[in-house]
Amino acid sequence: MANSAPTAAVLLIGDELLSGRTRDINLSQIATFLAPLGIPVKECRTVSDEQADIIEAVNALRAKYTYVFTTGGIGPTHDDITADAIAAAFGVGIGEHDEALAILTERYAASGIEFTKARRRMARVPEGASLVKNPVSGAPGFQTGNVFTLAGVPSVARVMLEDIGHRLESGAVVHSVSVRGRGAMEGALADLLGALAKEQPDVSFGSYPWFKSRDDHGVTLVARGTDREDIERAALAMEGVLEQTGIAAERLDGA
Amino acid sequence: MANSAPTAAVLLIGDELLSGRTRDINLSQIATFLAPLGIPVKECRTVSDEQADIIEAVNALRAKYTYVFTTGGIGPTHDDITADAIAAAFGVGIGEHDEALAILTERYAASGIEFTKARRRMARVPEGASLVKNPVSGAPGFQTGNVFTLAGVPSVARVMLEDIGHRLESGAVVHSVSVRGRGAMEGALADLLGALAKEQPDVSFGSYPWFKSRDDHGVTLVARGTDREDIERAALAMEGVLEQTGIAAERLDGA
Repeated sequence: MANSAPTAAVLLIGDELLSGRTRDINLSQIATFLAPLGIPVKECRTVSDEQADIIEAVNALRAKYTYVFTTGGIGPTHDDITADAIAAAFGVGIGEHDEALAILTERYAASGIEFTKARRRMARVPEGASLVKNPVSGAPGFQTGNVFTLAGVPSVARVMLEDIGHRLESGAVVHSVSVRGRGAMEGALADLLGALAKEQPDVSFGSYPWFKSRDDHGVTLVARGTDREDIERAALAMEGVLEQTGIAAERLDGA
Repeated sequence: MANSAPTAAVLLIGDELLSGRTRDINLSQIATFLAPLGIPVKECRTVSDEQADIIEAVNALRAKYTYVFTTGGIGPTHDDITADAIAAAFGVGIGEHDEALAILTERYAASGIEFTKARRRMARVPEGASLVKNPVSGAPGFQTGNVFTLAGVPSVARVMLEDIGHRLESGAVVHSVSVRGRGAMEGALADLLGALAKEQPDVSFGSYPWFKSRDDHGVTLVARGTDREDIERAALAMEGVLEQTGIAAERLDGA
């Protein structure tokens, strides 16, 4: 049964994202994974590797959205504190999960790599949590209530999503279409686009300018909505808006 | 006079970031701009183009951090609602700013582009706000209390920061150094790194694995702290940790 309007939030955990050293890719891949399930990401937060910050964000987001996806901080090193923080946020204990321990024991035995105490930390999950499979590197993610805890390494986070999709109640799928106008200026099309937004209130219209150089700038118009026919109509109308301002419209993706 | 420990938060505004269509670059460039000023970014939030969401985030962040930087939503189209949301968050009115209007009027007159009513919206700022210059495309950002509102287009956000640096009280600069170990495994170095973190409590040690393929994976170790000598010592120690596990260490950036 489809939930009428499920929502999601993403919590990215890691000093390296806030320092600017690393640019996140997980928000984008989680949002892209959830879109066909009709679960829009409504908010994203990025916090540092500090327990109090993680707890506060987890509790704020899990109360507000249907699902929360965290990434990062579930490895074997001293700065990997996400599992402890999630347990604390839910007010439950944390311990070694039998199945997680079995997976890791078998994996390291097969590879001939020593199963150190540090690696064994990765078998610890909050009490009552269920595991999320990780076929790439073994160490599982986990689900605690409506919170899914994934690895920070994008390729690992990606495969973990495959073991999560079937646990989610889906909603009405949002279709979108983008139309690019190279050389277009927002100020020239704002009134026409605003009128369009009023004409089609069930469709969300967005306008996204880019400006790389004097020769490489323009505006991408995006329409989103749950009705495919509405979106096709919106696409044609957006193309019309660009053409009325003397700009050739380029359709980027279909509804 | 240097503030002992100024902090910053970043608020990214825009449906296109949450949909996964666009990957943010502004967090990284704001953090990189603030680092030499000794102002660490402690939190980042991404919200949609909805007034209630923007207001809630602005008020939460401005109460908690020394400075807040918002990006996005200050153009001329109907979905550009950031200025109104900031005014509402501060409980002040909004109106045309004389200087902003003069800048825009002159700019459009010089370029021969019509100064439409939609474009004139970009002169509206919260009451009491001061402007932030935008030499790239004219339309200014603005400062409201401790909240700086920048454009979403990265090249424009970047130049706006140049007109903000001198308004900020700086703190103790955090130096960092990264050491990469190709083929390294976190599980093998976790104990050594954990011991190091205890030995140098004034330094923050982070461990960031990457895994692109079986042939392209490893761990980057990062040390951060305000004392340059501490960081150099940490760099040598991190190289030692990698070498003790049989991995050649590669220094990525200096303290």
